[in-house]
Amino acid sequence: MDSIERLTQLFEKFPGIGPRQARRFVHYLLSERQAARLDLSQAIRDLGQHTAQCRECYRWFVKTDPAKEVLCGICGNPARDRATLFIVEKDADIENIERSGFKGLYFCLGGTIPLASEEIPRYVRVHELVSRVDRDGSAAALKEIILGLSATTEGDHTRLLLQEKLLPMSEGFNFKITSLGRGLSTGSELEYADPDTIQNALKTRA
Amino acid sequence: MDSIERLTQLFEKFPGIGPRQARRFVHYLLSERQAARLDLSQAIRDLGQHTAQCRECYRWFVKTDPAKEVLCGICGNPARDRATLFIVEKDADIENIERSGFKGLYFCLGGTIPLASEEIPRYVRVHELVSRVDRDGSAAALKEIILGLSATTEGDHTRLLLQEKLLPMSEGFNFKITSLGRGLSTGSELEYADPDTIQNALKTRA
Amino acid sequence: MDSIERLTQLFEKFPGIGPRQARRFVHYLLSERQAARLDLSQAIRDLGQHTAQCRECYRWFVKTDPAKEVLCGICGNPARDRATLFIVEKDADIENIERSGFKGLYFCLGGTIPLASEEIPRYVRVHELVSRVDRDGSAAALKEIILGLSATTEGDHTRLLLQEKLLPMSEGFNFKITSLGRGLSTGSELEYADPDTIQNALKTRA
Amino acid sequence: MDSIERLTQLFEKFPGIGPRQARRFVHYLLSERQAARLDLSQAIRDLGQHTAQCRECYRWFVKTDPAKEVLCGICGNPARDRATLFIVEKDADIENIERSGFKGLYFCLGGTIPLASEEIPRYVRVHELVSRVDRDGSAAALKEIILGLSATTEGDHTRLLLQEKLLPMSEGFNFKITSLGRGLSTGSELEYADPDTIQNALKTRA
Repeated sequence: MDSIERLTQLFEKFPGIGPRQARRFVHYLLSERQAARLDLSQAIRDLGQHTAQCRECYRWFVKTDPAKEVLCGICGNPARDRATLFIVEKDADIENIERSGFKGLYFCLGGTIPLASEEIPRYVRVHELVSRVDRDGSAAALKEIILGLSATTEGDHTRLLLQEKLLPMSEGFNFKITSLGRGLSTGSELEYADPDTIQNALKTRA
Repeated sequence: MDSIERLTQLFEKFPGIGPRQARRFVHYLLSERQAARLDLSQAIRDLGQHTAQCRECYRWFVKTDPAKEVLCGICGNPARDRATLFIVEKDADIENIERSGFKGLYFCLGGTIPLASEEIPRYVRVHELVSRVDRDGSAAALKEIILGLSATTEGDHTRLLLQEKLLPMSEGFNFKITSLGRGLSTGSELEYADPDTIQNALKTRA
Repeated sequence: MDSIERLTQLFEKFPGIGPRQARRFVHYLLSERQAARLDLSQAIRDLGQHTAQCRECYRWFVKTDPAKEVLCGICGNPARDRATLFIVEKDADIENIERSGFKGLYFCLGGTIPLASEEIPRYVRVHELVSRVDRDGSAAALKEIILGLSATTEGDHTRLLLQEKLLPMSEGFNFKITSLGRGLSTGSELEYADPDTIQNALKTRA
Repeated sequence: MDSIERLTQLFEKFPGIGPRQARRFVHYLLSERQAARLDLSQAIRDLGQHTAQCRECYRWFVKTDPAKEVLCGICGNPARDRATLFIVEKDADIENIERSGFKGLYFCLGGTIPLASEEIPRYVRVHELVSRVDRDGSAAALKEIILGLSATTEGDHTRLLLQEKLLPMSEGFNFKITSLGRGLSTGSELEYADPDTIQNALKTRA
């Protein structure tokens, strides 16, 4: 396989990229100067050397001092509210939630659990979450866990599984388990809302 | 103007229909037999004779006895919970909400109030709503008004205006004013949710 | 079935209209005054009385004198070039082609022939076309038939069938049978053109 | 700027990629193993070392022998028809045209000339094209130049400019200048075709 084919195949693995766009990326890179390609090549190589997975929340972050850091900017920030733990599916969720002004801590689960899977996939960090909650719970540091899963079938499936695992701990350690409110999202019109959303919006009316 | 042009113009007034689709409607009718056109013509003519606007909720309904009925099937149903009044923008909202299992009564406002308008448009039945609430409130029959406006800027603007009007009455007559819960609607993913929706989902978490 | 349901069902038969939009049409009509509904009802009723199907090209047109006319404005116009006959699928095609400046006559086929159908559907006027061509051919009035079918599989299937039928007549009466040129349509980019279109564009290069 | 930000910015320069998708690419790479990132980094670095711009047609190709090759697989193939030169805008056009079975040679122009630009942009290889045509024309090797520009306003503008430049040479060297046929592209329906496309389809009817 030649180097154009090879790079096309690597770009096809990128999220949301098909064969045609992968090929356009390669043509774009071919039309650039070699210096620009070396820049990009170096930036990709650097990514692993300058980033680390946070020991606490498991999201990826950029290290300012390569030798020492093990905590991301949020977990290492003493001003954050350590009593509230927001469980999210993936790193990108955290970036989006930060814009809403949330001030607690996060735990990045790594994904949702497929409906068909008999056991929890390796990339979903349920084991790591239980350890984390066990540690924080023992230290009486935890008051609330927010289950921030997507409002999808797979998100709901994962949420129910986590609730089952966490419920005994919540009683032992005395913390709440909450889920994000369901209802009308910004821009919704009642004429087009699904019955489920209307029911939820009625339940959470205030 | 010929009859093809004239009918095209009338179809162009239909919601969501542009000139091209209006014309396709006319071609479709031309390709049908005259009997089919007379059927449609009659059905449109009948609409006004067999329907009435409910004296209570202002939605349109089909009369089974042309002489007598003045109440729609919901307002005339003694089994509905008369203590809860759900204010909606339009008739189509009611049909959709019914699917979610709501058992109270409705009031059809007729539309939302544009942000720019200096006074409340004639088609928005704020005056009629105030009369209705005054009557039901005096009879101590009302416990809750649910403001079921769309989660849009214009919906919010209308909601604030109604709250202002209804607040003094709610104190005098001792009923609650609530709004539909905001949060994640079915299918929402956190990565793509707007900050407003995330804030609301955090506020209504449970 | 009540008159709202009934009218909804009639609107669902309109081209491109589903149950939800059919219902919105009914709500729109309900919100109008009775006078507006009677206008629409009358316009639909009038359609059949003021229109006729052209005896020559089979398209629908508006009669100015109800008693007499049998030819549409194009077929009845002595200035049109009677030597060129443009076969089209439907009335709406003619309106669109007129904008391109074509000055000959048309014949409206009524539709395309489905690939699976063992015989030609009744609504496709192949028999009428053959009679027309026979008459015009005998009179030595015809120099060219343009087959203006869509560039789709069903359009091509219909085109081949018509060519087969018309070929013997074209030899007997000495007229040409042509098809619309295939190639790049306005706005096409070569990167995204299908191989078929590129082949055609190469064949018709000039 | 940290390495996540930096890489996000480099991906934002990719064709069709906005800030959100650029960020998803970085998250995807972060979630991969370092070995996968090094693979990608190397493939991008290799691109410039294993590829060259063809001396004849100016498209990029993969060298099998890094030391020697100067011609791409098409220009270096003695079986191709050297009498026909297909002028295209960009490399991706060639890959697409090859699927249609064209057997001549190409010249990759590098882009189209913007309507507003007072002079021909540096990346449009008009000068190189003129040299090429001069050489092939002198050798009496050229019988036809096909102008394969997009059927867009900018494509037409570029085509007219090239015709002007090439016309005197075509007379001197006795070759034809042709343009791709315009007409219905595969899938077109007459009802929705623009007047320009219908006019072209009528002109190229056969």
